[in-house]
Amino acid sequence: MGAILLMLPIASKDGHSVGILNAFFTATSAVCVTGLVVVDTGTHWTVFGKTVIILLIQIGGLGFMTMATFFALLFGKRITLRERLIMQEALNQFNISGIVRLTKYVLIATFAIEGMGAILLAFRFVPRYGWATGIGFSIFHAVSAFCNAGFDLIGNFRSLTLFVDDILINVVICGLIIMGGLGFTVIVEVMNKRKFSRYTLHTKLVLCITAVLLVVGFLVVLVLEFNNPDTLGNLTFKGKILGAMFHSVTPRTAGFNSLPTDKLSMATIFFTIILMFIGGSSGSTAGGVKITTAGVMVLHISSIIKGKDDTEAFGRRIPRDIISRSLAVIGIAMCLIILVTMILSITEPSQDFLSIFFEATSAFATVGLSVGITPTLSGVGKVIISLTMFAGRVGPFTIALALAKQQQKKKGLVKYPQERVIVG
Amino acid sequence: MGAILLMLPIASKDGHSVGILNAFFTATSAVCVTGLVVVDTGTHWTVFGKTVIILLIQIGGLGFMTMATFFALLFGKRITLRERLIMQEALNQFNISGIVRLTKYVLIATFAIEGMGAILLAFRFVPRYGWATGIGFSIFHAVSAFCNAGFDLIGNFRSLTLFVDDILINVVICGLIIMGGLGFTVIVEVMNKRKFSRYTLHTKLVLCITAVLLVVGFLVVLVLEFNNPDTLGNLTFKGKILGAMFHSVTPRTAGFNSLPTDKLSMATIFFTIILMFIGGSSGSTAGGVKITTAGVMVLHISSIIKGKDDTEAFGRRIPRDIISRSLAVIGIAMCLIILVTMILSITEPSQDFLSIFFEATSAFATVGLSVGITPTLSGVGKVIISLTMFAGRVGPFTIALALAKQQQKKKGLVKYPQERVIVG
Ligand SMILES: [K+]
Ligand SMILES: [K+]
Repeated sequence: MGAILLMLPIASKDGHSVGILNAFFTATSAVCVTGLVVVDTGTHWTVFGKTVIILLIQIGGLGFMTMATFFALLFGKRITLRERLIMQEALNQFNISGIVRLTKYVLIATFAIEGMGAILLAFRFVPRYGWATGIGFSIFHAVSAFCNAGFDLIGNFRSLTLFVDDILINVVICGLIIMGGLGFTVIVEVMNKRKFSRYTLHTKLVLCITAVLLVVGFLVVLVLEFNNPDTLGNLTFKGKILGAMFHSVTPRTAGFNSLPTDKLSMATIFFTIILMFIGGSSGSTAGGVKITTAGVMVLHISSIIKGKDDTEAFGRRIPRDIISRSLAVIGIAMCLIILVTMILSITEPSQDFLSIFFEATSAFATVGLSVGITPTLSGVGKVIISLTMFAGRVGPFTIALALAKQQQKKKGLVKYPQERVIVG
Repeated sequence: MGAILLMLPIASKDGHSVGILNAFFTATSAVCVTGLVVVDTGTHWTVFGKTVIILLIQIGGLGFMTMATFFALLFGKRITLRERLIMQEALNQFNISGIVRLTKYVLIATFAIEGMGAILLAFRFVPRYGWATGIGFSIFHAVSAFCNAGFDLIGNFRSLTLFVDDILINVVICGLIIMGGLGFTVIVEVMNKRKFSRYTLHTKLVLCITAVLLVVGFLVVLVLEFNNPDTLGNLTFKGKILGAMFHSVTPRTAGFNSLPTDKLSMATIFFTIILMFIGGSSGSTAGGVKITTAGVMVLHISSIIKGKDDTEAFGRRIPRDIISRSLAVIGIAMCLIILVTMILSITEPSQDFLSIFFEATSAFATVGLSVGITPTLSGVGKVIISLTMFAGRVGPFTIALALAKQQQKKKGLVKYPQERVIVG
């Protein structure tokens, strides 16, 4: 549907249709809030085209957030009474029976946050671009940031590189991205409870891991790029701090960039791939395997190494089925990225391996950062990346859902005898 | 010790010492049976140097095989009586109390297999290089192949590329590599029992996974490289089959190559990285995370996806602690390779990412294949690769051992209450 609208000649500035493949790619990228683009959003599309894109982003983002929040509640309902109570407590402002109310709540909160972001951004965009364009830009970028879509209108694939040392824009956009990446259950809980110790384990994990990733990401990017003349090297100290901060926030699904991605050092690009793979929080617009998934796996492996039977965090045990689910999601995600990277390295033989690996991870985690190879992909490559974005959007989530369902059915099968094998 | 001998001027043909760093690197590579080289083995070293190297390989290979087999038995002893019986049954020709007998057995079998390989290779090498050199070459390559060391004497970093369509050499070397990569417990069991159904689960898994990896690897390499004029493209059909076969065997720790590694397509190199990561069988000279480890993880993840409580193979359940151990080994291995790749991409900025990733995996899995960057590494890079080879050699094994020990100590800690988190 979105693809059809974008194919109309009135969507493109030059009055010609972009063709089905590019329209399909852009629509998929918008609905999946990925942000990879084959044509430059700012210069190619008319106001009509841009409106279609931002609506697709808003629908995709909201739909996904609502669904994710709803299923988070549903997961809570499925399980034991004790756990259900914890879940409901976390979400006590929702009446479980009222999906409508939930949706309304998500809608209001989303528009409130996006509106606030847009007003703040307008302070910068209106003086620069005039009233009409300035307000349009403010709304577009606030929505794009909160939905973690990463589409921008600045033009010529520059994303936010012009504003690398602008405090207001950096702080507002980072704030929107982080909030969008926390997920509603977490936002609601933080707004309703004062004390950290009273949060649910989920919220505690999300907040802690987010903080750790932001601080570590900031430091790593700052150190690796400090003297790179193409990125942080020639900036003022303020610019360096802001640039490193922004680059530690954006891989966790946003897809904006204030530093030129293709000029980053090899080590930073590789590090960014890892951050993108981890992604944001469950129940948000973020992609990737999700920070709780990665966190549970790290806790589990370290508990194995310490020889503990249970995986613990904040004085709570993490149930076995959650650990299994994390492992399945991570395993499948890795297989998918490896497969896509392999296929792309056959279809795009002229590209650099790191660029392909980056592109595949970016598409899977619906991040939308690119070292610049997206527009030059072959037809097959574009289809593969579209499918990857889609799989990355619905995939891990569906797997988690399917696994949660299965776990309901008790099985009364014969148990085979155990037998050991030698591993490692 | 080996490094000191190799530093002596009489070890190098030009009469000058190679310097401590290169001698240290070569000695580490030999003892760890890795096969990465900074100077060309065939042309640089004198007969004295080559003898030192092959002795280091034999000692490293034998020592590791004996230790690995011994600890495999020890693992068998630690656990329940039932499992111990299965283990002992598998190894019934050993008397558990007699480590000396075990060592003797390993020694005799090793020399018998290597001797047979050397005799077969001599049919090709003696006519080509004359009696003295030919016999030397046959022994060197037979030992190097069975120990999965991958050192060669052909010269100019060509490894076995000259013999890409030679049936005898391909079959003998592949046979030695595969046998060396199966591990003694498996070889002994196959020799002593007629029926597949009576093998232990470990042997069944090792044989099946090996077969699957060989067939899949053969087909993938054949398809990807069929028309690559630098590799299989210009060979006869026989050469294509043999070349693909050899390249599917060698990443599983041998490190010889009959195709020019740096000319392989990007997809094949990436595929080779995955094969190298998986490696060979536990209790052999092979490196990598081991095929049983990878196999257990794949079975476990697929059982999670199917919603089964237990991980089963061949009508046996795989115990939880084995699964945990596999997960820990794979997790740690990935972290290590990521870390090394990251460090190398800082210290070697002029290299291609794929080459660095390949080199790091090759060192970790003690494979010794290289796309040719080893000799041009910086000093820091060489030290890092040496340490990686060492960690890859003793690391996963030590981890598995440490975990097996811990599992002995029962813990009587307080159990925290469970709490669910949302993952995926
Ligand atoms: K995005
Ligand atoms: K090797």
